[in-house]
Amino acid sequence: MDKPLKILHESLNNRVIVELRSGRAYHGILDGYDVPHMNLVLKNADEMKDGSAVDKHNMVIVRGDNIIYVSP
Amino acid sequence: MDKPLKILHESLNNRVIVELRSGRAYHGILDGYDVPHMNLVLKNADEMKDGSAVDKHNMVIVRGDNIIYVSP
Amino acid sequence: MDKPLKILHESLNNRVIVELRSGRAYHGILDGYDVPHMNLVLKNADEMKDGSAVDKHNMVIVRGDNIIYVSP
Amino acid sequence: MDKPLKILHESLNNRVIVELRSGRAYHGILDGYDVPHMNLVLKNADEMKDGSAVDKHNMVIVRGDNIIYVSP
Amino acid sequence: MDKPLKILHESLNNRVIVELRSGRAYHGILDGYDVPHMNLVLKNADEMKDGSAVDKHNMVIVRGDNIIYVSP
Amino acid sequence: MDKPLKILHESLNNRVIVELRSGRAYHGILDGYDVPHMNLVLKNADEMKDGSAVDKHNMVIVRGDNIIYVSP
Amino acid sequence: MDKPLKILHESLNNRVIVELRSGRAYHGILDGYDVPHMNLVLKNADEMKDGSAVDKHNMVIVRGDNIIYVSP
Repeated sequence: MDKPLKILHESLNNRVIVELRSGRAYHGILDGYDVPHMNLVLKNADEMKDGSAVDKHNMVIVRGDNIIYVSP
Repeated sequence: MDKPLKILHESLNNRVIVELRSGRAYHGILDGYDVPHMNLVLKNADEMKDGSAVDKHNMVIVRGDNIIYVSP
Repeated sequence: MDKPLKILHESLNNRVIVELRSGRAYHGILDGYDVPHMNLVLKNADEMKDGSAVDKHNMVIVRGDNIIYVSP
Repeated sequence: MDKPLKILHESLNNRVIVELRSGRAYHGILDGYDVPHMNLVLKNADEMKDGSAVDKHNMVIVRGDNIIYVSP
Repeated sequence: MDKPLKILHESLNNRVIVELRSGRAYHGILDGYDVPHMNLVLKNADEMKDGSAVDKHNMVIVRGDNIIYVSP
Repeated sequence: MDKPLKILHESLNNRVIVELRSGRAYHGILDGYDVPHMNLVLKNADEMKDGSAVDKHNMVIVRGDNIIYVSP
Repeated sequence: MDKPLKILHESLNNRVIVELRSGRAYHGILDGYDVPHMNLVLKNADEMKDGSAVDKHNMVIVRGDNIIYVSP
């Protein structure tokens, strides 16, 4: 398995930081992903904007093509 | 089935928040979707701009490639 | 048939609102579409900019990749 | 044949308006197109910018991916 | 052969104007192209910015995806 | 093997600079990559913004489509 | 072989100018490329910004999708 997917896989059920284009980020539990789009499902996710939490989602599907990085 | 699609599927007939690029969002009942584009059909949808409802749609097809996230 | 296409299909010969990126919209009769691009053909279409009609087209082919939503 | 292509095909040798992203448009005779890119060939085309003609082309190949709409 | 490619082909060894996104253009001899990307090779090309020559290239490969139009 | 991938491969376990669009960069150990997306895994990565470190990641998956260059 | 690739191939081990979107350019020895992405490997490359060298790379992989032109 490719290394990026391997790291995603090992991060399942763990807290990750997902940074998107345009200064938005999500901090939450990685609940799933798909291949090759890298769409992510996060649980208990804080939506961050310029460093502060602006919203909270029990569950959120984040489209992969807006993602800059995922940090386990 | 991939987790992101599974969550979309389980959200059918339920209220979702769909956030798009450029500060626009839709709050409505998820009536359908397609794969792999993630185009969505929403019913009884409020169109939100910067946090307030600016329009209302009985039915709306939202193209997937503008979506940042879908929150069930 | 996928739900988004089914809704498009049922909207044939009916009035739809097509909103594009950059504040432009078309109000017209849906005369056709293609798959998977979602290019649309509209008849008797008003071109709207920031809420007011700026042009009128007997017939117009709108490329799908600029579309944000189609509302029947 | 898909409706959008059918309309393009019927517009051959007729005058069309082609509007591009960023406020540029071409008014000219449709001389050809390709599929699926929707690259167009226009003859005797006026290049319009914000409503006035800024250039004239005997022949011009317009790439499809900049096109917002084609109006026969 | 599709009309846009046919026009490109007939323009080989002739002077063309290639306009790119962001106000840049090239005036030069069309020395080659590829399909389907429409990458171009130009010889003796002037690089134009807002209407005046800012650089000169004996040979230049221009990527197709920045091109707005090619005018023979 | 293509040269760009060969250079990536030889850079495994070595320090690389990854520059992204919008003035952001990562300095870290290349731990893996995939093909053809060029998604990268970096270890012990400093996140740089306009030349100064703004964050630190033990591990980070950087999506390939935001990358401008990778410098071993 | 397509002409653009032929020119790239003949430029191997020679100095090229690679101009990217957003006013950035690289002047260096072309050490390799791949197809169809046109990712490039440059050696002894100067990174130019608005006409002056701002950085130097012994080796750099430049992603093809940011390239405007390559000039041998």
